[in-house]
Formats: sequence, structure tokens, C-alpha cells
Amino acid sequence: MIFKQAPEPTIGRLAIYLRALRTILDSGVSTVSSADIEKITGINSGQVRKDLSYFGEFGRPGRGYSVEPLVNKLAGILGLHEKQKVMIVGAGNLGTALVGYTGFSNSDFELAAIYDNNFNKIGRSLWHLEILDIENMPSINREMNVNVGIITTPGTAAQYAADKMFESGVKVIMNFAPARINVPENVTVRNVDLTQELQILCYYMPKEEIVEIK
Amino acid sequence: MIFKQAPEPTIGRLAIYLRALRTILDSGVSTVSSADIEKITGINSGQVRKDLSYFGEFGRPGRGYSVEPLVNKLAGILGLHEKQKVMIVGAGNLGTALVGYTGFSNSDFELAAIYDNNFNKIGRSLWHLEILDIENMPSINREMNVNVGIITTPGTAAQYAADKMFESGVKVIMNFAPARINVPENVTVRNVDLTQELQILCYYMPKEEIVEIK
Repeated sequence: MIFKQAPEPTIGRLAIYLRALRTILDSGVSTVSSADIEKITGINSGQVRKDLSYFGEFGRPGRGYSVEPLVNKLAGILGLHEKQKVMIVGAGNLGTALVGYTGFSNSDFELAAIYDNNFNKIGRSLWHLEILDIENMPSINREMNVNVGIITTPGTAAQYAADKMFESGVKVIMNFAPARINVPENVTVRNVDLTQELQILCYYMPKEEIVEIK
Repeated sequence: MIFKQAPEPTIGRLAIYLRALRTILDSGVSTVSSADIEKITGINSGQVRKDLSYFGEFGRPGRGYSVEPLVNKLAGILGLHEKQKVMIVGAGNLGTALVGYTGFSNSDFELAAIYDNNFNKIGRSLWHLEILDIENMPSINREMNVNVGIITTPGTAAQYAADKMFESGVKVIMNFAPARINVPENVTVRNVDLTQELQILCYYMPKEEIVEIK
């Protein structure tokens, strides 16, 4: 793909720009400068211009960006032209928390299905969804066409959940299970490693003694 | 602090290096090259050398790095010389999931306390912990001395949870609630925005039509 070279931090910022620009669009403003985007997002205007330049020439020097076309471009780049349906495998505490996650409303995502392998859970309701049998995922997903999967199983069940997802046509997976999973080349997995996130956070903790640099 | 200038992706990779080097140390190997680190982590050896160079001269050209001192240095840089105690506010589904999260065992973190404001929950057991009253946090934490906090409340309760944490001396916070929180300057907050993580992931979804670049 022609814009695959943009580094991942750029992609993360595109998502932030998209959110900000949608707010601007809703407020009826039609043109923004990179300085305006900086004011809203806190991201340096030079960085904004550099990030957007990976994907072509959007703005005109001295005239800024037209908001609506830019929103459409960014949504297209991120694959978010329309709401993406999401499935979860694992109806435990984390899966349950995600089904109830209020951040999904007004987002680009719609939680469409939750699967489990436990017969005590299958068929029960979880908020607005019915817990489905993971064995039926390939046939159910032929109708539903969900491309985005979230794994919230225990570590030992994660690979099986992932295998079912590949079999069912899921293309990107967010893995919360504390286990690495193997995937075919055409599937992208993002491992959410909570302890690693905490390690990064601890770097920012004020340290009582300066670590000696030799 | 003298090494605050390292960019955040570097900090994220330090956590990965630390994990890899601890495994190497456990296996009894005493010296590694950046190429060895590349083999284990998949991170380019040039990047490894560059990342480590932010924090001083660890290795010797042609002789590699001594594993044990490097582990100690990285742990020191990340503030992880000893296990960090963690507290959670919010004993709902997500909080419950985190208390049961198996990724904490064998990590740098120890879950020390969970708080809630719901009298139906306070006093009840959650795995190995008793749910504590958020109003008692300042006095309890004078003894416990927990520096790392995780917020898993609904969005509307997040700021109150954060305020209690500041009052109790918590220094870094991971916020899972779908709400921004205001913090004093000496506290660092990391917002975990699930929909943004999903947006990044969707970028890697194979797209049926190439987005036109004009």
C-alpha cells in the first residue's frame, strides 16, 4: 500500500487529528491551519504538517486545510469511512467490561458480537448482546462480516480464539490475553501488554535518587 | 532529570529490552551484543544501540554489553529496582478483571489494594484483596505507600478517583475511564483510549480500494 511507510506514532496522531477535526466540522468551521490543530490537540504544528505530508498534499500554504475533505481523507486512511463492527472472544470480566464500555458510543466502532466456549455462558445476555458459541463463529461471521476482533480470554485460550478469528475472516486483532499469538501474514495483531504500559508509566515517576550514568 | 529527553517510543523499547535481558540473565549468559538483542526482540540492532545511548555508554564496541549491569541500569531508569505496588480504583468489571490478571505475576508489579465508593462492594473480597473504601485511601496509603494507580471507574467518577490518588501521594496514573482528568504538574497520567488503539489497528487492515492521494 502506498502509505505504509508512515511510522506508527504518526498513525496514532492521525486518530487524534481525526477526532479533533470531526469536532471542528461539527462546530461549522470549514478551514483550519496546522496551528489551529495544535491548539486543540497540543501536537506541534510542524509535526501536524509532517504527519499529514506522508499521505499527500492536503493543505495549501498560507490557506490551511479544508476540514471536510481532510476528515474524509483521514477516515479513509484509517479505514474508518463507516462504522467498523467489532467482535470479542471471551465473556469473562474483561469481555464484560468492554461490552459495557461507554467509550464505544459515538466512536467509529460498534460492538457486534461476543463469543465464548463456556456452555454456562453461551446463550446468556450481556448488555445488548447474546453470548455466542465460538464454534459457530465462522458461519455467523459469514453474515455479520466483522473484521475487527478483540481477545479477552485467559492466556491459554488466546491462540484458539485467534485461529477461529482467522478462519472467520477477521483481519485485525487486539489481544488483551497475556500470551503471544501466531498469525498468518495478512492479519495484524496488536498485543496490549498491561505490565509494559505500567513500566513506561513508571519511567515518569519522580525518582528520589538520580540514576548514575557512567 | 538528566535522561528525560529520550522519546517515548524509546522508553517503550527499554521495557522490552529489560524483559529480554532478564530472560538472558536467567539463562546464565553474561554478555550480549545489540545483534543478540535484535534476535530476541526483533528490534533492529542500530535502534537498540541508539536507544541505549540516550542513557550513557553501556557497552564496549566489539565486546557487547554485560547483561547484569545493563539489567540493573534499565530497571533503575524505569524506576523498577524493586516491585512497584499498584492500586486500583473501581471494583467493577474492569477492576475485577485486572485484579485477576495473570500477567501481573512474574512482573515488576504487585497489586496491593483496590478501592471503591459503593457500600455494597466495600469489605467484600476480590481474589486475594478486600475492597477498601475510597474515603480511607489517604490514611491507608500512608502505611502502604503505593505510587502507581489505575483508574477503572465510570467516566463520571474518574476525576474524583484521581483527586483521591493525588491526595494519597500516588505519582503515576493509568486511566482506563473514558474521561480526561486534570492533574497537578508532578503527577503523570496515561490515558488508555481503547477506541484510539482500535483506530490505529484499523490502519493495518487490508483495504479493498486504495485511498486516492491527490
